[in-house]
Amino acid sequence: MAKLTSRAEDYSKWYNELVVKADLAENSGVRGCMVIKPYGYAIWEKMRDQMDKRFKETGHENAYFPIFIPKSYFEAEEQNAEGFAKECAVVTHYRLKADPENPKKLIVDPEAKLEEELIVRPTSEAIIWSTYKNWIQSYRDLPILINQWANVVRWEMRTRLFLRTAEFLWQEGHTAHATRQEAIDETEQMLEVYADFAENFMAIPVIKGIKTASERFAGADETYCIEALMQDGKALQAGTSHFLGQNFAKAFDVKFTNKEGKSEYAWATSWGTSTRLMGALIMTHSDDLGLVLPPTLAPIQVVIVPIFKGEEQLKQIDEVAFKIQKQLRAKGISVKYDNNEQNKPGWKFAEYELKGVPVRIAIGARDLENKTVEVARRDTLTKETHPLEYIDIYVEELLQTIQKDIYNKALSYRESHITKVDSYDEFKKVLEEKGGFISAHWDGTPEEEEQIKNETKATIRCIPLNNPLEDGVSLISGKASKQRVIFAKSY
Amino acid sequence: MAKLTSRAEDYSKWYNELVVKADLAENSGVRGCMVIKPYGYAIWEKMRDQMDKRFKETGHENAYFPIFIPKSYFEAEEQNAEGFAKECAVVTHYRLKADPENPKKLIVDPEAKLEEELIVRPTSEAIIWSTYKNWIQSYRDLPILINQWANVVRWEMRTRLFLRTAEFLWQEGHTAHATRQEAIDETEQMLEVYADFAENFMAIPVIKGIKTASERFAGADETYCIEALMQDGKALQAGTSHFLGQNFAKAFDVKFTNKEGKSEYAWATSWGTSTRLMGALIMTHSDDLGLVLPPTLAPIQVVIVPIFKGEEQLKQIDEVAFKIQKQLRAKGISVKYDNNEQNKPGWKFAEYELKGVPVRIAIGARDLENKTVEVARRDTLTKETHPLEYIDIYVEELLQTIQKDIYNKALSYRESHITKVDSYDEFKKVLEEKGGFISAHWDGTPEEEEQIKNETKATIRCIPLNNPLEDGVSLISGKASKQRVIFAKSY
Repeated sequence: MAKLTSRAEDYSKWYNELVVKADLAENSGVRGCMVIKPYGYAIWEKMRDQMDKRFKETGHENAYFPIFIPKSYFEAEEQNAEGFAKECAVVTHYRLKADPENPKKLIVDPEAKLEEELIVRPTSEAIIWSTYKNWIQSYRDLPILINQWANVVRWEMRTRLFLRTAEFLWQEGHTAHATRQEAIDETEQMLEVYADFAENFMAIPVIKGIKTASERFAGADETYCIEALMQDGKALQAGTSHFLGQNFAKAFDVKFTNKEGKSEYAWATSWGTSTRLMGALIMTHSDDLGLVLPPTLAPIQVVIVPIFKGEEQLKQIDEVAFKIQKQLRAKGISVKYDNNEQNKPGWKFAEYELKGVPVRIAIGARDLENKTVEVARRDTLTKETHPLEYIDIYVEELLQTIQKDIYNKALSYRESHITKVDSYDEFKKVLEEKGGFISAHWDGTPEEEEQIKNETKATIRCIPLNNPLEDGVSLISGKASKQRVIFAKSY
Repeated sequence: MAKLTSRAEDYSKWYNELVVKADLAENSGVRGCMVIKPYGYAIWEKMRDQMDKRFKETGHENAYFPIFIPKSYFEAEEQNAEGFAKECAVVTHYRLKADPENPKKLIVDPEAKLEEELIVRPTSEAIIWSTYKNWIQSYRDLPILINQWANVVRWEMRTRLFLRTAEFLWQEGHTAHATRQEAIDETEQMLEVYADFAENFMAIPVIKGIKTASERFAGADETYCIEALMQDGKALQAGTSHFLGQNFAKAFDVKFTNKEGKSEYAWATSWGTSTRLMGALIMTHSDDLGLVLPPTLAPIQVVIVPIFKGEEQLKQIDEVAFKIQKQLRAKGISVKYDNNEQNKPGWKFAEYELKGVPVRIAIGARDLENKTVEVARRDTLTKETHPLEYIDIYVEELLQTIQKDIYNKALSYRESHITKVDSYDEFKKVLEEKGGFISAHWDGTPEEEEQIKNETKATIRCIPLNNPLEDGVSLISGKASKQRVIFAKSY
């Protein structure tokens, strides 16, 4: 097994190699579309199930809406349409036929042209609000709290596994409310759900904030986001929650009779996270040996590897290993005992390090004698010998410790990479030499934002929630500013 | 709430009304595509989770492959391509632009034409086997046991909610094996998994069998199926498992080095079930009052309805109801206590009957006095008074009884609707007057099968597994036959 390119050598290459070598995903024969391999999908399933649980706990139900959006629906909400029109897959025909010039080949049947083109959903506001129109008559029909797990397609020109793919998997919540405040509360609640999930399940610290107007979701009045910091100092938007105002209700004429008997447009939110989170997971925790997974997300939490000479010794180790496996499984821990004789222990060590298995237990001849095992942590790469007695309790606690430590490690990296700067020169220097989040004053205009983006490639990631007020002057225009915002280069 | 059309009056209308009124699904603005509503989706989720568990228990892993199939891949396996070419959605462009004649409208950007058209997957053999080519080199890479949960699109001309829709949700297993026998064993194993799931989870009795050549999946060497019988005497194919031979391995050149060092094509299976099972569920068990759900699949297993005059009485009932709710939840039973004051008990009774809630508990003033409740079964519509004491144990056992009884009711209907006939006249008479499965001799030719289909609309549903041998003569040609096959009209 060839070694991974190191992060220091080429971070981007390291990422691409890791995704493929750890069997998470690979590029397919279809431009920009990926194949999510079983190991990668198993991690995504854990993320999905956990988010799904949290959505249900906050009163949401799942439903499913069509993958296709008729062009006339798509163009109804102008800003949304404009935002996605440039990158959407369009279905124009519904049949193929044999090529008359080469009967083994198929061609599009020109007689099967659709009267109205269908857009493969890049996001589902349009199709969902065209449906909600029939569901909403009275305030009694509100709120509608629905989530959908689905695939979406955005025809991105430059794609990267998990981070930016033409097709990706996601969840999109779409809610309808009777009042503006209720919709804002929902938007904020879901941001909290995302932040809590990212930090306490994925061990990824995030900054919660609000996007500037130019970074908003197309069709939103306000976009809330969680922003994570990758090990190369670039930011990654890990989830967004949009307050859509009455924009979609107006576009699709969704009115309801309120408690006072008056007709009103409904208020909307939408919120989403996607397989992009896999990219955030990989780039937050992993190292030059491979994946580092928080125990909550690891398909295999513990691997047991025998180190033996000859059948007789293997048999003895098997006995101990199966007992440990049984003990750990009784505690709900997923354990693999790899007693495959074709691969050497060293190969196995490297393989499970690459795959990010949080804990490795090795058992050799001396361990048999001493009634011990060797326990190794993937995150710190430390090893220690532990008695067999109470090994299950030890490993259970160790997994919890690892979960915390991984989070704290990422947090301390993030904390040490938020730099306050007060001049544009300093800004450019920090961006160049250190990277990370830069906290600086901004004059509130799209012009300054744009200029900084064009000159440095850094964008305003967010205006943090509960941002402390502070008098200052903005980086370029020098105008007075009341608060700092967070800049970074981003994925 | 208007009453449902009765099954006797118009079975098809009853079905359509029921799906919509019970909030399972509705037609969308996109031709042939449905919206699966939260109540319907909650049932599908239970089916999905249970199947997923069974797939994993039999060694399968989930993965995800692209929704698009390049036309050149699609046409690689000729039979498969021919089978699906007539009904597939084709993506030809990747961008829209503002209509120069009407800037508020969008048109397909002619400059964004794809070099090669993409087919929205009607089934994924082509894209998956083009991927497996890179995964399979040696017999050590086999078997590959993968399942995918996905949406697929088949451009059906006549659609019906759940039964036949342009887009539907399904799972598709795709496995690769080193030997023919192993692939056949897998095909048969998955048929057993489906049959067990249908009977023991969905309470739908099924006949396991093999399709005739003309009813086979396009690209398969053998198609196994489970066939269920609906209450109108029509059959519904509830799941299929295909032995694909080496057809896809040859189309995509997937060869491996076997244990003897020789190069061989891999052997394939695929197997699928879809949201069509929702249709089977509805049509197997439900009645003129609405859905009848087996407890395993009911989003709400028990509903508690208070019957009260005034706040004071409601308060007293609340106390009892919350206690029962707590007891039942502790047993893992999903319970809704509906003390909404806006709706009358009669309205609630009808509503929960329509929704198929298996058990209803009503609590009134007299019950408070007597320390009793009224327990009603949705399946039999019977009621009885039961003491509060041990109500949780009683309800828990009752749910198990209902599950069994629903299955047995469907089984006895099915058993009384398998009719042996020995002449074509009798065949036509039974088909016309009684419906159901008809067991008859067939000469084994596609010609006779075709003639029967054209003249009666009945098709051979399957050649049952473990079919007893019996000498006979076929219905039309009068040729000698060694076994009976199962005919029926079908969905």
